[in-house]
Amino acid sequence: MSFPRFFQHNNKFLTRIDFSSFLSLLGLDFYSCSSFNFMRAINSFFGIRRSLALSSSVMSGGKVLTTSNINPNVITMQYAVRGPIVIRAVELEKELANGAKKPFPNVIKANIGDAHAMGQKPITYIRQLLACIANPVIMETDKSIPSDVIENAKTFLGSCGGQSAGAYSQSTGVEVVRKHVAEYITKRDGGIPTNSEDICLSGGASESIRNVLKLFINKNDAKKVGVMIPIPQYPLYSATLEEFGLGQVGYYLNESSNWSLDEAELERSLKESSEKYDVRVLCVINPGNPTGQVLSRENIETIVRFAQKHNLFLLADEVYQDNVYAQGSQFHSFKKVVTEMGAPYDKIELASFHSVSKGYMGECGMRGGYVEFLNLDSEVYVLFKKMISAKLCSTVLGQAVIDAVVNPPKEGQPSYALWKKERDAVLASLKERATLVEKAYSSIDGISCNPVQGAMYAFPSVQIPAKAVEKARSLNQEPDFFYAMQLLETTGICIVPGSGFGQKDGTYHFRTTILPQSDLFKDMLTRFTKFHNDFLAEYK
Amino acid sequence: MSFPRFFQHNNKFLTRIDFSSFLSLLGLDFYSCSSFNFMRAINSFFGIRRSLALSSSVMSGGKVLTTSNINPNVITMQYAVRGPIVIRAVELEKELANGAKKPFPNVIKANIGDAHAMGQKPITYIRQLLACIANPVIMETDKSIPSDVIENAKTFLGSCGGQSAGAYSQSTGVEVVRKHVAEYITKRDGGIPTNSEDICLSGGASESIRNVLKLFINKNDAKKVGVMIPIPQYPLYSATLEEFGLGQVGYYLNESSNWSLDEAELERSLKESSEKYDVRVLCVINPGNPTGQVLSRENIETIVRFAQKHNLFLLADEVYQDNVYAQGSQFHSFKKVVTEMGAPYDKIELASFHSVSKGYMGECGMRGGYVEFLNLDSEVYVLFKKMISAKLCSTVLGQAVIDAVVNPPKEGQPSYALWKKERDAVLASLKERATLVEKAYSSIDGISCNPVQGAMYAFPSVQIPAKAVEKARSLNQEPDFFYAMQLLETTGICIVPGSGFGQKDGTYHFRTTILPQSDLFKDMLTRFTKFHNDFLAEYK
Repeated sequence: MSFPRFFQHNNKFLTRIDFSSFLSLLGLDFYSCSSFNFMRAINSFFGIRRSLALSSSVMSGGKVLTTSNINPNVITMQYAVRGPIVIRAVELEKELANGAKKPFPNVIKANIGDAHAMGQKPITYIRQLLACIANPVIMETDKSIPSDVIENAKTFLGSCGGQSAGAYSQSTGVEVVRKHVAEYITKRDGGIPTNSEDICLSGGASESIRNVLKLFINKNDAKKVGVMIPIPQYPLYSATLEEFGLGQVGYYLNESSNWSLDEAELERSLKESSEKYDVRVLCVINPGNPTGQVLSRENIETIVRFAQKHNLFLLADEVYQDNVYAQGSQFHSFKKVVTEMGAPYDKIELASFHSVSKGYMGECGMRGGYVEFLNLDSEVYVLFKKMISAKLCSTVLGQAVIDAVVNPPKEGQPSYALWKKERDAVLASLKERATLVEKAYSSIDGISCNPVQGAMYAFPSVQIPAKAVEKARSLNQEPDFFYAMQLLETTGICIVPGSGFGQKDGTYHFRTTILPQSDLFKDMLTRFTKFHNDFLAEYK
Repeated sequence: MSFPRFFQHNNKFLTRIDFSSFLSLLGLDFYSCSSFNFMRAINSFFGIRRSLALSSSVMSGGKVLTTSNINPNVITMQYAVRGPIVIRAVELEKELANGAKKPFPNVIKANIGDAHAMGQKPITYIRQLLACIANPVIMETDKSIPSDVIENAKTFLGSCGGQSAGAYSQSTGVEVVRKHVAEYITKRDGGIPTNSEDICLSGGASESIRNVLKLFINKNDAKKVGVMIPIPQYPLYSATLEEFGLGQVGYYLNESSNWSLDEAELERSLKESSEKYDVRVLCVINPGNPTGQVLSRENIETIVRFAQKHNLFLLADEVYQDNVYAQGSQFHSFKKVVTEMGAPYDKIELASFHSVSKGYMGECGMRGGYVEFLNLDSEVYVLFKKMISAKLCSTVLGQAVIDAVVNPPKEGQPSYALWKKERDAVLASLKERATLVEKAYSSIDGISCNPVQGAMYAFPSVQIPAKAVEKARSLNQEPDFFYAMQLLETTGICIVPGSGFGQKDGTYHFRTTILPQSDLFKDMLTRFTKFHNDFLAEYK
């Protein structure tokens, strides 16, 4: 079984694009581009062929830093969630704003888990707390702010240097927030003790995930360190492994049993890669991104036994822990499971990640997240903290948002009723859309979609007709990339092709979020269905 | 001439420390430490001996990730600004808070450029703008907010997805902020055009500096890429080079001509390292950190000619551009100088960095900064943007602070008078303290201090008596580390020893900020002088 090569498309679609705007999108201007063939830059951007990029150094006019001597991992790394289709979507939005005529009234960005960008409103409690911390004067002047907000803002500021969010925090984060995180985890996991000293706050979960993976870089080894990641996966992992020069060891999720993890597949993956890599890490995303499954307790236990048996460090990406919708599904943290499994599993090394970007709050732009370590070697932890200290600290206001999330209003407090109402409404609406998405896509001929048990995405498989596959190949594009680009140009709907996440050879998928608000969402499904049927008819 | 080996001290001082508190500070608890000798962890933290660390893996109880297989660069990297002396200072603060008796009433943290932590008050305009962006409702309800604040907040939100700071921004930053940055630079440099597409916002300047240096990693080369950095330097550079496996090529600043850059020294440094390294980058910090000099225009031109002659990429760390105090000193941006020098110098590749953490605002915790590129190869820039896209975006509220700094109230607007008053007061106070520091330290026997022309630091040289040097060596400590630790334990004053920044062999220095507010500052000088005289007497 071979692994899919990601991003094999080339970029013929660019002939459709207004190049000056495109360059501007990429941050290039004609003035700075005049001396080189910008198709080269575009090819580099899409990371297609290093050889092409290498040959271009002669055209760079004697620059010190060129694609021929740049960090090679920067050339090969990819992050499809912000790749060429999304760039084209932003471009289309601008064209529409400038009065261009298109066969659709607006662009619908279903490419990224960015709730506020899709119209979700912020939670009042979070934003009131933030405003008080940002400008403490209003706690005196604005009489409409609830007393619990003021109390929590003061507690937070009391833990900041100079009582100001403008002071650096400790590199691991503001102390009182780490304490609240620990209390939150203890409560979530039914009382299992948590030590606030095992928590490090960061700018989103991504930063923590990158920091932990960085520990495994070891260039002196004859064998690269290998990191097991699911396929399909969230491309932060493939991008980071590529950037760090770590080996990507993919294991396929089982689409036919709702994207669960098969032990046999884990064993196969490990075995087939063990000659090439020293496999030391197993990453699991639960609830799944892009696949939307919620792992059963039993499945998690299987994974834990596998990790223990093979002496693997576990990375549990649990940023969607509050996003569970399906009847009978429940979030089980890896920490709780390994603890309850007892020896020897409770000694497994685990890093678990959470974020303020998802859940009911969707505060992506705030950049708040954390890692909790379990059983990390104490010396390693000291080094980890030294390493992050050179980056000083993550945003203190982002840390305030973490505080708001892990220490929300309690029953009986003035902010509680509104907070609960807003939170419940968001989660109910997400749940409704999760069901809607599955049903809608499953009802379309040639598309099948697993239930969206959790997270914010569906990852339907789409049967692409042979003629369309042929057409895509003739353009040197992945078929699902071709499909997604046609969809965008025809309907304004922006999704991410499955090839950006990885999928079994010969299968095609796309990731769509469930985030467009209800009316927009129904509109999107109508546009989508029409496009899909027309596409099938064109290439039948 | 050999380079100083940093951090040669060992940690005998730790015998003075309450270990449980110390471990807790490092994020360790006894429960997690019980199975290993924690002195090893401490040694690892101080990164002294890899060999020691390596030998400790047997003690780690079969962990997957240990100091014997961790990323080796994480072991060797150092960041003295948050090193062991600072850790001890935090510890002392806690001891005092718990009622311990010490020969001083409080700890004075002069180790880090963290203005708010030292009591500087935030600028009203910045915090009002932030509060409006964080909780837009208050723009309707709070009638005391000036109209220009509201207008600017609305402009900012209009450039955010879903009009919310909770949406991800473009990876390069919110568009309107980048436009304001471009206008700010154009104005600063007397009209030289700036393109907002050449600007990328980031979480502090540190993140941008790290992102740019990352481009130069090239493990396939027989020779490591070398990066020239000043000695003394801000240890972000040495830490990042170590982490990235890039070669550190130090050039000494000339202390006897107020830390200026000598062309002959640049040539020597380059020549001596060119066999070992492929030197491709020259970093300059202006105004200087830790050295506080402001480079003359003539000196900058010399540097530019040197960089052009040797085909070097210029990194200009200009985060202290608003912190210029000395009569006759003026900030000249590298961009302005290379542009005005004309061909061939105006084609030099330049990355210039700025931050909201310094200046008059000191908003360190907000994590706002940016890089402006000049003459960057366009293909490289495309790859740079792809690389940063995997980290999604920097904090949007941090970007709002950048906006406030580069687009402050204009004359005639309601917020202008107060903004100007507050800004001028901070800068005047910093100027006063800059003079005070220089005079005070220069008047002490055995200490000499260059003028603090700019930035936030003095870097006095201190003559350490031979007997004290001997004593320090017997403890396996750097003499200036020994001196700084004695100072801390005796007076509560926290400074950073010169060995953390680099200095010529046989010379000793320390970095102190000029940030303690006036009364505290005078108190600090009294304590310092007494300590120093006692120290001289003890070791004469």
